[in-house]
Amino acid sequence: MIYLGVDLGGTNIKAALVEEDGRILREGSRPTRLPRPAEAVCDDIAGLCRELMKEEKLGTADVACVGVGCPGTVDDTTGMVLYSNNLDWADFAMGDYLHKALGMPVRLANDANAAALGEALAGCAKGAQSAVIITLGTGVGGGVVLDGKLLTGYTGAAAEPGHMAIDGSADAPLCTCGRRGCFEAFASATALIRQTREAMQAHPESGLWKLAPTLEEVTGRTVFDARDAGDPVAAQVVDNYIGYLAAGVANLINIFFPQVVGLSGGIANQGEALLVPLRAKVEPLVFGAAHAHKKTTITTCTLGYRAGVIGAALLGRTAR
Amino acid sequence: MIYLGVDLGGTNIKAALVEEDGRILREGSRPTRLPRPAEAVCDDIAGLCRELMKEEKLGTADVACVGVGCPGTVDDTTGMVLYSNNLDWADFAMGDYLHKALGMPVRLANDANAAALGEALAGCAKGAQSAVIITLGTGVGGGVVLDGKLLTGYTGAAAEPGHMAIDGSADAPLCTCGRRGCFEAFASATALIRQTREAMQAHPESGLWKLAPTLEEVTGRTVFDARDAGDPVAAQVVDNYIGYLAAGVANLINIFFPQVVGLSGGIANQGEALLVPLRAKVEPLVFGAAHAHKKTTITTCTLGYRAGVIGAALLGRTAR
Repeated sequence: MIYLGVDLGGTNIKAALVEEDGRILREGSRPTRLPRPAEAVCDDIAGLCRELMKEEKLGTADVACVGVGCPGTVDDTTGMVLYSNNLDWADFAMGDYLHKALGMPVRLANDANAAALGEALAGCAKGAQSAVIITLGTGVGGGVVLDGKLLTGYTGAAAEPGHMAIDGSADAPLCTCGRRGCFEAFASATALIRQTREAMQAHPESGLWKLAPTLEEVTGRTVFDARDAGDPVAAQVVDNYIGYLAAGVANLINIFFPQVVGLSGGIANQGEALLVPLRAKVEPLVFGAAHAHKKTTITTCTLGYRAGVIGAALLGRTAR
Repeated sequence: MIYLGVDLGGTNIKAALVEEDGRILREGSRPTRLPRPAEAVCDDIAGLCRELMKEEKLGTADVACVGVGCPGTVDDTTGMVLYSNNLDWADFAMGDYLHKALGMPVRLANDANAAALGEALAGCAKGAQSAVIITLGTGVGGGVVLDGKLLTGYTGAAAEPGHMAIDGSADAPLCTCGRRGCFEAFASATALIRQTREAMQAHPESGLWKLAPTLEEVTGRTVFDARDAGDPVAAQVVDNYIGYLAAGVANLINIFFPQVVGLSGGIANQGEALLVPLRAKVEPLVFGAAHAHKKTTITTCTLGYRAGVIGAALLGRTAR
């Protein structure tokens, strides 16, 4: 069977025809052109889907389902987009609208959750019983997939591992959500950039200044590059950062004991240079590890930016 | 259909015949008499089960399943008790042994998880889509029930919400598991007793000393009683404690967005006196609460010490 996946972003609408195993048959994209009414954006989504189907000579009967990953809070049971800050939509019946336009079943997920499902079913956790996917980007997003099914809650749409506090100190950094000490406030790329800048201000002698002559030039890579060039201040920032990341990862392991933890986002591109020290820091924090017969695999995601469309498509393979 | 539930503790074996809705038909208990080989304890379990069935004039065909809540790490798929520190057992095929003795299907769960299942299916979260049960006792235990099914992991048996760190400070209290800053190290009854003693030592003038003339006499109730009697030091300890509890509860809400969070254990006996300030502290920490259409109910458990046998019995009602 073939599945249609849509990754609806603030800038682009990406869509793909995807096979059962997650392989992409054909993909395409269109600009989202916000601000626009939800209906106009959905007309473009439907048009893009029809275009891909036509190019592959597929009719409605050949496609099992169209799945959409959408920023914000969605309810897959009712097909509603409850609230999307990025799109500036609220209470929009996207499921009904796309069902009428395309004549096939529609499934919805939060975009970060759709990407997590893609990695769980067709990427870094393919074949695993359970996976926790953590995206280290502007924020810390992610998703949890248990027995092939996304964890969605009763009151909200989805797991928000980034908004688990890992530090209760009064001087813990403030998160964008308003809470202090969230995992996101320590482990996002934004947090790492802040930590790098603070270290540069405290250490005018640091080699970090060679790679980023002004604080504005600091990226999530700067501190790793400076560490590799032998700068001790950068090495300390990286070590502290991996400590924060380990605290959050260990918490999620102790709650879910998943088969796989997969990291994605720019910082995960460090690969084994990040994973080797991370695994060493996580291990002593895992509850009951001494008596466990099995161990969680900590790895990096493999599908890149395509995780979103692939996961959205594979929503059609999962129970609601 | 009737179900048999067994709550295997270090001191007593409790068993009950339970109806589909969680009502107890008949219950009984025997001493565990540790240390004993696993087989001898299981012979007593089987004997107690047969006795209850005989008293109710039930045959093997009348009972759907026997479920056992067992301290330690169990694997319900294979029927193995992998490791139990309390019982001093390892790699014991309890499922097979009891199946041979009783001739009916056997299900296993960790004891805290069985109690959580009881509360989720027949107690404080009856009818709810999802529940997180948190036991505030010597440690912080609990369980997570999603769509009527216990969350069990790949590498371990069960969720360990008590071993999620909520404070990353170097001076955060050390947990019995070896990690610093665990939820358990802040929110267990043991932790509250420690916090009470520390406040007494710092405040020789406190009314706490009237209720507990020596530090050894402090219990989990002392500080609540002193607060109710108007002691300001006790009021501060209670306020701080509820703050810690709120941090952990909010983390679990942001991860699971469950319909119900249920608190059990001695401290939960404070009821609304604990719940009212707790709800007020949790609310601003919940992610996306401003746009959520539904809200997690925070409440106390209702089955008391019977949650264990009822949940063990109702294992037979759930998918493995």
